[in-house]
Amino acid sequence: MSANNNGADVRVRRTRADIARTVLAILARQGVSEVTHARVAELAGYSKTTLYTHWPARADLLVVALDSVGAMPHGPQTGDRRTQLIGELQAFRDGIVDDGLATILVILAEWGAGVDDIAAIRDRIVTDGQSVVRELLSKLVDGPRLDAAVHLLTGAVLCPTLMHATPPDDGLITTAVDIVLTGCSTPRTGPTGGRAA
Amino acid sequence: MSANNNGADVRVRRTRADIARTVLAILARQGVSEVTHARVAELAGYSKTTLYTHWPARADLLVVALDSVGAMPHGPQTGDRRTQLIGELQAFRDGIVDDGLATILVILAEWGAGVDDIAAIRDRIVTDGQSVVRELLSKLVDGPRLDAAVHLLTGAVLCPTLMHATPPDDGLITTAVDIVLTGCSTPRTGPTGGRAA
Repeated sequence: MSANNNGADVRVRRTRADIARTVLAILARQGVSEVTHARVAELAGYSKTTLYTHWPARADLLVVALDSVGAMPHGPQTGDRRTQLIGELQAFRDGIVDDGLATILVILAEWGAGVDDIAAIRDRIVTDGQSVVRELLSKLVDGPRLDAAVHLLTGAVLCPTLMHATPPDDGLITTAVDIVLTGCSTPRTGPTGGRAA
Repeated sequence: MSANNNGADVRVRRTRADIARTVLAILARQGVSEVTHARVAELAGYSKTTLYTHWPARADLLVVALDSVGAMPHGPQTGDRRTQLIGELQAFRDGIVDDGLATILVILAEWGAGVDDIAAIRDRIVTDGQSVVRELLSKLVDGPRLDAAVHLLTGAVLCPTLMHATPPDDGLITTAVDIVLTGCSTPRTGPTGGRAA
């Protein structure tokens, strides 16, 4: 590869990083409807032509931004299983509240349904996000019960945040963890499952 | 009120219903980014001027559509608590899959954060949606445990649907209900809660 090509690579990478940062800032402050070529070009200091050349569709701009989203927040890996699960869900909750992760999740849900590149990013982010909860619960249950327990606990953070605009407090997270740990620890009693019916 | 005013009222109501139906159709097929005054006017057969006069912002068009969303789907109210809970979550899952409820939920999450009218609609729809699960669980737990159990179960449907684009099958729903019912039925054992830690 020639020195010129290396120079071009560096420039493209820098442009890409600038665009990603700008789109994420717009998402956090104004929402996805404000992510337009004109607005991103203006704020990032590039020409609209440059943006349209590299990223012709609005979805392309979102892909650049979502692709730059790093590892999901995770809690401290100390203490017993219950403590770690609570810390893990608190870290998820804090990421939603402090780092604008809610907007990212909404975009992944909305655009992942129609844009393959965004679906792939969604799968990476969600798999990473749920990985520690899954690992912790996998020592207690497996198969369909593991899947259900992972969705129950991540859903208990997601549902109040997205559907009530009220992120769960520590008490709700602790109570949810206790219900699921108790429900997973109690042996199943035949085909009817939980005896609470 | 004069006959003329009544005539105007009927016309406004009819226009409103036409716009609501058109916006919901666009949402279901093409997503929220296609809901523009131009597109809605074209498909509904009104002038852009009429739309801008009554509903100046894009959010206003969404409010009209979301406001027209009726009662949430609910399951059959027969059988024991476990059977009803499973049926209720299946009805929620089916509403998401068959009736495009996923798009509605995503819009409520995204726009409810910034638009008060949409937040009010979100609260109505979510309260209705969770009402039967809450009622069924309220005979088993109360206070924070009731809140946690409601979020756990609705989250177990919401999370795989929005975050994995994979609505839960009947097995996952049943397993989730059994974990939560067992977890709620087992008495708490002091400050550490679930004994599984």
